[in-house]
Amino acid sequence: MKRRVGIVGFRGYSGAELVRLLKRHRQVEPVLMEHRAEAEDGPRIRGRQAPARLALSPEAVREHRLAAVLLATPPEVSLELAPALLEAGAKVIDLSGAFRLRAPENYRRWYKQEHPQPALLAEAVYGLPEFYRERIRSARLVANPGCYPTAASLAIRPLLEAGVVDPYAGVVCDAKSGVSGAGRKPSLRTSFCEVQENLTVYSVFDHRHVPEILLNCGLEEGELSFTAQLLPVDRGILETIYFRSLASAGAEALAGIYEQRYRQEPFIRVYEPGHLPDLRAVQHSNYCDLGVALDPGTGRALVVAAIDNLVKGAAGQAIQNLNLMLGYPETEGLL
Amino acid sequence: MKRRVGIVGFRGYSGAELVRLLKRHRQVEPVLMEHRAEAEDGPRIRGRQAPARLALSPEAVREHRLAAVLLATPPEVSLELAPALLEAGAKVIDLSGAFRLRAPENYRRWYKQEHPQPALLAEAVYGLPEFYRERIRSARLVANPGCYPTAASLAIRPLLEAGVVDPYAGVVCDAKSGVSGAGRKPSLRTSFCEVQENLTVYSVFDHRHVPEILLNCGLEEGELSFTAQLLPVDRGILETIYFRSLASAGAEALAGIYEQRYRQEPFIRVYEPGHLPDLRAVQHSNYCDLGVALDPGTGRALVVAAIDNLVKGAAGQAIQNLNLMLGYPETEGLL
Amino acid sequence: MKRRVGIVGFRGYSGAELVRLLKRHRQVEPVLMEHRAEAEDGPRIRGRQAPARLALSPEAVREHRLAAVLLATPPEVSLELAPALLEAGAKVIDLSGAFRLRAPENYRRWYKQEHPQPALLAEAVYGLPEFYRERIRSARLVANPGCYPTAASLAIRPLLEAGVVDPYAGVVCDAKSGVSGAGRKPSLRTSFCEVQENLTVYSVFDHRHVPEILLNCGLEEGELSFTAQLLPVDRGILETIYFRSLASAGAEALAGIYEQRYRQEPFIRVYEPGHLPDLRAVQHSNYCDLGVALDPGTGRALVVAAIDNLVKGAAGQAIQNLNLMLGYPETEGLL
Amino acid sequence: MKRRVGIVGFRGYSGAELVRLLKRHRQVEPVLMEHRAEAEDGPRIRGRQAPARLALSPEAVREHRLAAVLLATPPEVSLELAPALLEAGAKVIDLSGAFRLRAPENYRRWYKQEHPQPALLAEAVYGLPEFYRERIRSARLVANPGCYPTAASLAIRPLLEAGVVDPYAGVVCDAKSGVSGAGRKPSLRTSFCEVQENLTVYSVFDHRHVPEILLNCGLEEGELSFTAQLLPVDRGILETIYFRSLASAGAEALAGIYEQRYRQEPFIRVYEPGHLPDLRAVQHSNYCDLGVALDPGTGRALVVAAIDNLVKGAAGQAIQNLNLMLGYPETEGLL
Repeated sequence: MKRRVGIVGFRGYSGAELVRLLKRHRQVEPVLMEHRAEAEDGPRIRGRQAPARLALSPEAVREHRLAAVLLATPPEVSLELAPALLEAGAKVIDLSGAFRLRAPENYRRWYKQEHPQPALLAEAVYGLPEFYRERIRSARLVANPGCYPTAASLAIRPLLEAGVVDPYAGVVCDAKSGVSGAGRKPSLRTSFCEVQENLTVYSVFDHRHVPEILLNCGLEEGELSFTAQLLPVDRGILETIYFRSLASAGAEALAGIYEQRYRQEPFIRVYEPGHLPDLRAVQHSNYCDLGVALDPGTGRALVVAAIDNLVKGAAGQAIQNLNLMLGYPETEGLL
Repeated sequence: MKRRVGIVGFRGYSGAELVRLLKRHRQVEPVLMEHRAEAEDGPRIRGRQAPARLALSPEAVREHRLAAVLLATPPEVSLELAPALLEAGAKVIDLSGAFRLRAPENYRRWYKQEHPQPALLAEAVYGLPEFYRERIRSARLVANPGCYPTAASLAIRPLLEAGVVDPYAGVVCDAKSGVSGAGRKPSLRTSFCEVQENLTVYSVFDHRHVPEILLNCGLEEGELSFTAQLLPVDRGILETIYFRSLASAGAEALAGIYEQRYRQEPFIRVYEPGHLPDLRAVQHSNYCDLGVALDPGTGRALVVAAIDNLVKGAAGQAIQNLNLMLGYPETEGLL
Repeated sequence: MKRRVGIVGFRGYSGAELVRLLKRHRQVEPVLMEHRAEAEDGPRIRGRQAPARLALSPEAVREHRLAAVLLATPPEVSLELAPALLEAGAKVIDLSGAFRLRAPENYRRWYKQEHPQPALLAEAVYGLPEFYRERIRSARLVANPGCYPTAASLAIRPLLEAGVVDPYAGVVCDAKSGVSGAGRKPSLRTSFCEVQENLTVYSVFDHRHVPEILLNCGLEEGELSFTAQLLPVDRGILETIYFRSLASAGAEALAGIYEQRYRQEPFIRVYEPGHLPDLRAVQHSNYCDLGVALDPGTGRALVVAAIDNLVKGAAGQAIQNLNLMLGYPETEGLL
Repeated sequence: MKRRVGIVGFRGYSGAELVRLLKRHRQVEPVLMEHRAEAEDGPRIRGRQAPARLALSPEAVREHRLAAVLLATPPEVSLELAPALLEAGAKVIDLSGAFRLRAPENYRRWYKQEHPQPALLAEAVYGLPEFYRERIRSARLVANPGCYPTAASLAIRPLLEAGVVDPYAGVVCDAKSGVSGAGRKPSLRTSFCEVQENLTVYSVFDHRHVPEILLNCGLEEGELSFTAQLLPVDRGILETIYFRSLASAGAEALAGIYEQRYRQEPFIRVYEPGHLPDLRAVQHSNYCDLGVALDPGTGRALVVAAIDNLVKGAAGQAIQNLNLMLGYPETEGLL
């Protein structure tokens, strides 16, 4: 029998993607949870049953036996909702940044405020299965990673661990994202006429996603330069990441490091040298694609990482975590 | 010496286009008129003089001897500003729908409210130079046409006048517009992720621009079916207009009717049968391009009309009107 | 055990979509059939098995017991391949126009040449399940419908059958398609810089898809005016179809006709009056969405039909037909 | 009286932009020079004179007294045409890479062949007015710069000259371009369906434009890492360029260096720290916009440079060079 999983924020882009993906899940039945009333609800179709909805409350969680609740909400809403949902017995996967940074001082530094739930912050497990799979399996509260850090961490950490790049020379991550990453709330910055035929550098060196990458990769602030740019596309993130290569590791060796590290991973694909990922290769999928190139002249290496920001960067990864937490096959609903 | 012309609403898309076009005008100096304070003002560039600005007021109009004021404002703002500006001695060209419909009953019917300035409504001249050139020359107040009606009226009226189409069979105008026509105010409908890879039918049979077409062409409501669609492009309008052709007028004859009618017009281009306009042909120009096709099987004629909604559909046509009102060559600043 | 189904032309957009969709099919294993050698093959991914491929031949069909072969090939290639494949015992679904027009004189009229396989042309069943389901079940050779006629026929025929529109007044179908409908072969017309920020009317009254609509709806040539336009989107077709409504059928009644007709159809969705489909609603799905509006002033009705040209307009419908032909649930792999 | 200037390759994107821009030039009359017959020629417009054309030949150059010829042709065609045009007395501005690299060994290294005209290669002046203005004034043959090197050189050289960045730490230039930079010839890589909703890394560390940047900036190969990416936009280049900053130069100081260097330049705009250029700011203009940001943590500086690849990156810069060569005001036709 299918277990029920609640979705809060199902009208946003990540929330809608959760609904779409869970419709294909053979063991989970998604339940839309109304948090705040909103008028608009998409087209009305004749003779079709609208999906069942619940008003969000701890009682509803208990009464309808929700195994988990997925929060596709802003951090301040997640901070408000998570404690009561956990207390009501549901596992919680939060797609916002509310519980990602481990320690209160990190939150203070990057979110410019005190964290109101330090105990939950400490308890939360960072939901990047490729790095923290076992801890996710037993977690009550998972902080689903940011879209940029998902791609960046998967690309950067293996090379640092293998000792083939020089962290002191610094890592440059030039990141580009589609507009859906900015959410569904209208703003001038995400208006069609401002984005179409444009490319905008909107965050230089101070993006809130930076500390996630640092924590995942064991880097210091001074070792990473991260720039975020807005692409005129709906969905997809592509990051070009520049390292100073140590010794004589060729492109083939770098690709081999990734292959070795991710051999068992169902959602990581490593390209042969000479091939590089693009957005098309990953859109609407939960894959993170990685490709490498090496400049013999400069000894500089380039890694290209691509994901769909709404799938591996949000809803897909959340379902991957859900599968781990509920004991389903990790790829269920995602292939 | 250049004469000063004020622009109200210079931060909107039509207003910004007015500024851009008037910078090339050899006899007019644009003056930005601050109406309501807004924070944002584009990038700050080192060592460049920002263009001079004035706070909008009748006194400023007199003191700085503004020959005319262009209102790129919503109808309610234009209704509020126009009387005092006229009284201060400036000619006024209003780009909104406030003064386009001639009679109060039209305004009531389509804008769902009483017109607060019926005398000015009666006085205003509809600024479509190809139809009303002489009246525009001597006008104090010009109502700059809507973007859709500009293309539709230029396409429909000559065929009706020539008596080669059957108005009783009805005219279908299937109109598609770029997003800049909806203005710069953020909304979900014009957000990038809603528009990209999409086509939306957003107004069927009841668009506020319909009465302008009826008045320009002498049609009754029951004779025109107008549909408006939102294209995933920044600028440009293309209308496919279907008529029932009378008698045996071939495509060549229809093209000839347009050529005859618009022979002296600097901004109308008529295509040879077998060629049809597209958006690219008119973007960033003040042209209205017209092409025809005839279906021998059905006796139905198709006219394709294309303009840039921000130029011939707004700012360019306003400057064409300004040139007529101030006695400059009609094409000044527009070629 | 899964049955093997061959795909010819798997590198084109429709062919690639067939592969993508069949990967989710629980009872079919897709087999890529090499017809003509081409160098390019997408990125090479480390440690992943490339999908098995076969050189296309009747022997391969027999030896590997292909239950069916899907031809995503140009008409001239389909005409060449279909006879031998059928003879080798495979069912054939052809996505080209080669076998759609029933009679040789239709083919001569619209494809400007003699049909080389008139017997197969007569035998072929037109693969629009909503109209011809039973005949498809027992067919050896199915002609998968064109993308435009799929949407147009599903929209037009029910109103004609119900007798609520006047065919003599004519039907205007103003159709817009994404670029993937033009196939993958590079051409100036489908180059990014020619399509982006553009809308092009590329076929007026003489598109090869017109006769399919006529045949499906029982219309005469003189009763349909069809125009095809190229949208700056990758995938999706939206058609605005104008009728002269008979008597006093309101929008509610028109929607009711569709609901009645398509009540059992898994892939047709009828919108409540006041709602209209857009491309987003159908992209990446096998749905055909239908919405209606009525102009009380003119008695003219508008029907808006939307599909994904690569799914319901090509690969998805082909799999729907495949499911019927092989006895699987009609929606398998498509929801 | 206007002087005649020939344009070869006027159907390509750069050539068409030359025609468009020269129509506004008050002292030059553009003449289209037919080099190779091509069928297609844009829509035919009734009652309009087609612009006069000449068959390209040295005799035509002499007879029609062409002051200059602009070659918007591939390098192999420019190599073939330039000598005879120069001999016929015309000044030549070549928009291809044929004459940009100064020395035959550079050409051999990056174009993989012997330069057939080493004397002209040595004579040609690199047409970047901000660096080589005086030499351009007296040149017979100008090699118009590549689009990427125009932006990169203007961004990189002032900081190196000022000694505030460390060349040994290397310069990373992450460059993104619109599709028109790839020319008008159809290819799969520039097809709409391959580019839309995509971002592709197409050249890593080995682009033919790299040596231009090295020569302009006095860098060695090992000091620059250049990556080229294809954006889903028609026109515009944006480069994010990363340096290791020396000493304690803040963002204000870096902006000041640019301001100092380019104070007299009509086409360079330097942004205040906190503001960065985007594509919109430069499209359809001859500006190169520059903005800076500094990461206090890493001591790394980011410079963002933006141009329109068809204007400052091609046709606009060619006209800027033409103005210098013919003694006209440098900005004529370009503001």
